[in-house]
Amino acid sequence: MRQSRYFLPTLREIPSEAEIPSHQLMLRAGMIRQLVSGIYTYLPLGYRVLRKVERIVREEMDRAGAQEVLLPAVQPASLWQESGRWEDYGKELLRFQDRHERPLVLGPTHEEVITDLVRQEVRSYRQLPMILYQIQTKFRDEVRPRFGVMRAREFVMKDAYSFDVDWEGLDRSYQAMYKAYESVLQRCGLRFRVVQADPGAIGGEGGSHEFMVLSEVGEDSLLVCPRCSYAANIEKARSKTPEYGSAGDVPPMERFLTPGARSIEDLKTRFGLNPETILKVLIYRVDDRYVAAVVRGDHEVNEVKLKRLLNARRVELADEETVRALTGTGFGSVGPFGLTMERVVDDAVAALPEGVAGGNEPDVHYRHVVPGRDFQWEKQGDIRTARAGEPCVECGGTLEMYRGIEVGHVFKLGTKYSEALSAVFLDEQGRQRTVVMGCYGIGVSRLVAAIVEQHHDDKGIVWPASVAPFHVHVIPVNIRDEQQRTTAEELYRQLTERGTEVLLDDRDERPGVKFNDADLIGVPVQVIVGKRASEGLVEWKWRRTGEVEVLSTEEAAERAAAIGSGE
Amino acid sequence: MRQSRYFLPTLREIPSEAEIPSHQLMLRAGMIRQLVSGIYTYLPLGYRVLRKVERIVREEMDRAGAQEVLLPAVQPASLWQESGRWEDYGKELLRFQDRHERPLVLGPTHEEVITDLVRQEVRSYRQLPMILYQIQTKFRDEVRPRFGVMRAREFVMKDAYSFDVDWEGLDRSYQAMYKAYESVLQRCGLRFRVVQADPGAIGGEGGSHEFMVLSEVGEDSLLVCPRCSYAANIEKARSKTPEYGSAGDVPPMERFLTPGARSIEDLKTRFGLNPETILKVLIYRVDDRYVAAVVRGDHEVNEVKLKRLLNARRVELADEETVRALTGTGFGSVGPFGLTMERVVDDAVAALPEGVAGGNEPDVHYRHVVPGRDFQWEKQGDIRTARAGEPCVECGGTLEMYRGIEVGHVFKLGTKYSEALSAVFLDEQGRQRTVVMGCYGIGVSRLVAAIVEQHHDDKGIVWPASVAPFHVHVIPVNIRDEQQRTTAEELYRQLTERGTEVLLDDRDERPGVKFNDADLIGVPVQVIVGKRASEGLVEWKWRRTGEVEVLSTEEAAERAAAIGSGE
Repeated sequence: MRQSRYFLPTLREIPSEAEIPSHQLMLRAGMIRQLVSGIYTYLPLGYRVLRKVERIVREEMDRAGAQEVLLPAVQPASLWQESGRWEDYGKELLRFQDRHERPLVLGPTHEEVITDLVRQEVRSYRQLPMILYQIQTKFRDEVRPRFGVMRAREFVMKDAYSFDVDWEGLDRSYQAMYKAYESVLQRCGLRFRVVQADPGAIGGEGGSHEFMVLSEVGEDSLLVCPRCSYAANIEKARSKTPEYGSAGDVPPMERFLTPGARSIEDLKTRFGLNPETILKVLIYRVDDRYVAAVVRGDHEVNEVKLKRLLNARRVELADEETVRALTGTGFGSVGPFGLTMERVVDDAVAALPEGVAGGNEPDVHYRHVVPGRDFQWEKQGDIRTARAGEPCVECGGTLEMYRGIEVGHVFKLGTKYSEALSAVFLDEQGRQRTVVMGCYGIGVSRLVAAIVEQHHDDKGIVWPASVAPFHVHVIPVNIRDEQQRTTAEELYRQLTERGTEVLLDDRDERPGVKFNDADLIGVPVQVIVGKRASEGLVEWKWRRTGEVEVLSTEEAAERAAAIGSGE
Repeated sequence: MRQSRYFLPTLREIPSEAEIPSHQLMLRAGMIRQLVSGIYTYLPLGYRVLRKVERIVREEMDRAGAQEVLLPAVQPASLWQESGRWEDYGKELLRFQDRHERPLVLGPTHEEVITDLVRQEVRSYRQLPMILYQIQTKFRDEVRPRFGVMRAREFVMKDAYSFDVDWEGLDRSYQAMYKAYESVLQRCGLRFRVVQADPGAIGGEGGSHEFMVLSEVGEDSLLVCPRCSYAANIEKARSKTPEYGSAGDVPPMERFLTPGARSIEDLKTRFGLNPETILKVLIYRVDDRYVAAVVRGDHEVNEVKLKRLLNARRVELADEETVRALTGTGFGSVGPFGLTMERVVDDAVAALPEGVAGGNEPDVHYRHVVPGRDFQWEKQGDIRTARAGEPCVECGGTLEMYRGIEVGHVFKLGTKYSEALSAVFLDEQGRQRTVVMGCYGIGVSRLVAAIVEQHHDDKGIVWPASVAPFHVHVIPVNIRDEQQRTTAEELYRQLTERGTEVLLDDRDERPGVKFNDADLIGVPVQVIVGKRASEGLVEWKWRRTGEVEVLSTEEAAERAAAIGSGE
């Protein structure tokens, strides 16, 4: 490709709207441009990289035995009503009507459509197992799109769906996809962790794993045990429930005044109480009712866990007015006593020998409160957010925290969709059974951004060879110099003929401009054709290290051709 | 690919909803399934073919110097308001709002988005010319989707846009795309004609050409001159204006009664009048006004021509009540006299020496009506539909009629969009000028259907090698026969290793089922491994001709490998 004719609008300045390196660099390197919030155009350079990542994904899917299909982007609302997600999915699901006023959605994911296909076409166990996948543009109406293509509304996704006769089959399909995902990320040159995750709006009964690219700018927090293999998204991560020594005989509850206390912080600093012994009671609106969640004063309620424990659709903190109406007091003195609503108590609270709790009247607390003795609860479980430094739930090792970019998520759906949509088959004995499903997503466009996050320096992007837009960047320093121009053109011709993807900077620009652009767009190898072209010599520069070697033109051509052919 | 594991649900019966061969065969061969009206899923076999066609399109675009991008499917309404098409495009443009109530559309085409991109990124003549293209799923809310993927609402399209400094540049870009389109269709094995066309909702000042695949089931009619190169869509096609002998002195108009005449047919059969001499007057609502269109009794008004002549947005026949209010009479006796609305007269009427016309009162006509003497008009032009048998407007040859499937359409837009959106650049002299644009569309998914229309027989599809889903179909007649199974498996292994795309029918099915399926899905070569496998012999059968040769297994392998490597 000749750079003089290539639509590659690089930017010198960092665009003010871009907060993270990948967003800044993808804009500066002329890979993407925003159309409206969260919706991007891929320019030629960006699209080349996207296609390379797509190709890796496709190869690994095919290798794992998955078959490629293309499902419609526009789907009938009726299928979403059938699965129940018409209600559950919220505003990220873009809904509209066609000219005949039939309700439709723009697919954010395709469980319904594929299950509908399979219930019509699969009759017998002989047709199973089967894994279908597609690479497609999806739309999710994010409330706050940000970070460029990292969290966009319109994005390219690979989604796969597996269909098995039983859970053992699902385990095998899940393993195959899990391995394929590891291969994809390895081939993209990424450092990543696979973590246990909450299945969110996709749901399913069998749990899920997320593939997290490690990065400071990641929107997810992971807790990882350095001693065993435990790793989980903070939405899901557990730590061991603390063990407390025996408290012996605890005296009866005792009322005391806490004038003006509005928070755990107040109780700690103004009244000298240890947050670890305070019972923090938070009132939540859970679907159509209210629930009191009780955690330790130093812990945070994990709303994802709470939602899952209560099997709820929506969980939201109540405002102070509601709290006052329900408990008789405002923030700061709510306690677990005498509430008419359901109480959900965290394991770490249930295990406490004694603690301090609000009195459900202003400025009043009680000490010597013994859970189980002084108040009861309807539900108990792990509803707190685990933290770095806490003991691993598996082995007791000390958990560490990382930031990650979620680029993949695999789910054991079980029969959530196949039951709702009646996707059944006849087994060997002629009995009707429900298909057992899994689903598997990779954010293809997000992968591109994640690669840039892990592969850049202060000068620009440094592409791994596997996804680089070009193999080699040939840069004649001065295109008006006859010798340089001829040498560069000849290299370009030879290499292109041999199948190497070459970008030739045939622009009549100052050397500084050319070098800066080359470092910015990050082709792994730069072949710089300068003054010594007259001696038959060129410079071979690795973008990653900056290391330069002087080679004969022939040797440079041989090396570049070898890179192009993947040797 | 092993057929036993391949998701290939073939159908024996012709699905009742499918009217044309390609729709029937694509359903029966397990290529597509309908989700809702005009919206289809591509199953693995269908998607393989779609990808092969995409690849041909991509190669020809790249060869022509076009650069691939990916534009958003979801676009802001504001750009359509800026171009004026928010009003013009009608109900095929799917409109909706996002969660923040911002109006958006689902892109049926991308002139606005790409012009917006170019006005932001192109500053100088040095960046031009440039051709950008994409292959993308598009949505047009057709009022009557039909014929499977031939006229779908959601479909895959390649759209390209050229940007030049002037009209000469546009001519070159247009020629390059025109040639690329010819190559695409040739490589897909299609018989086609390129015809002059009406630009429709895309618009532009420079005219357009359609690429028409010849087929009985085509929705378009083409008029083609067998003597010269003239060929045009019937929406646009012209024939020579008839020449009439001199009528000498025409007597004054004469009133006569035509009781009960309601149509040209009545005047002909009941009153013995020659339709060629009758002046047919039709009242149209044209945007916000009414217009009387006058054509010969044997001619039809071409509403596309009328719309273009009047530069109108919408043209619609008035109902009889309106006609009566405007003219004083109902259908059958409307005439060109004393109308208060604009009259548009067809060239063939203007040239008439004399004729018969309605009297604008019930049951009354006039004879000896001389256009220009007895009535005037405000506008004259070619507003009739040309017909087979009429003389070619270019050379006088006799026009012939064909049916065609429009698979491509190229447009010289000129400055329609660049002016509306202010896409300007500085020329060599530093003067600001407007970019001159072209646009170029290929219906990729429609191409697949068009190929099936031209390449099938009564047993099924007969793929051209260039787009066949597999190169070779290896069919062991009886998979339980050890020798047949081993020979077939060995062929499969060898060929797959050598890069040939092989479908292996390893199913335990009756031979009849296997052969019927093989003929239905239409892989060009069948290698049938039967009883003579024990002698080292197999049958090599060409799907197109049915011709069978007995070959040694080795020879079959060599031939098949040669096909796979494109020799």
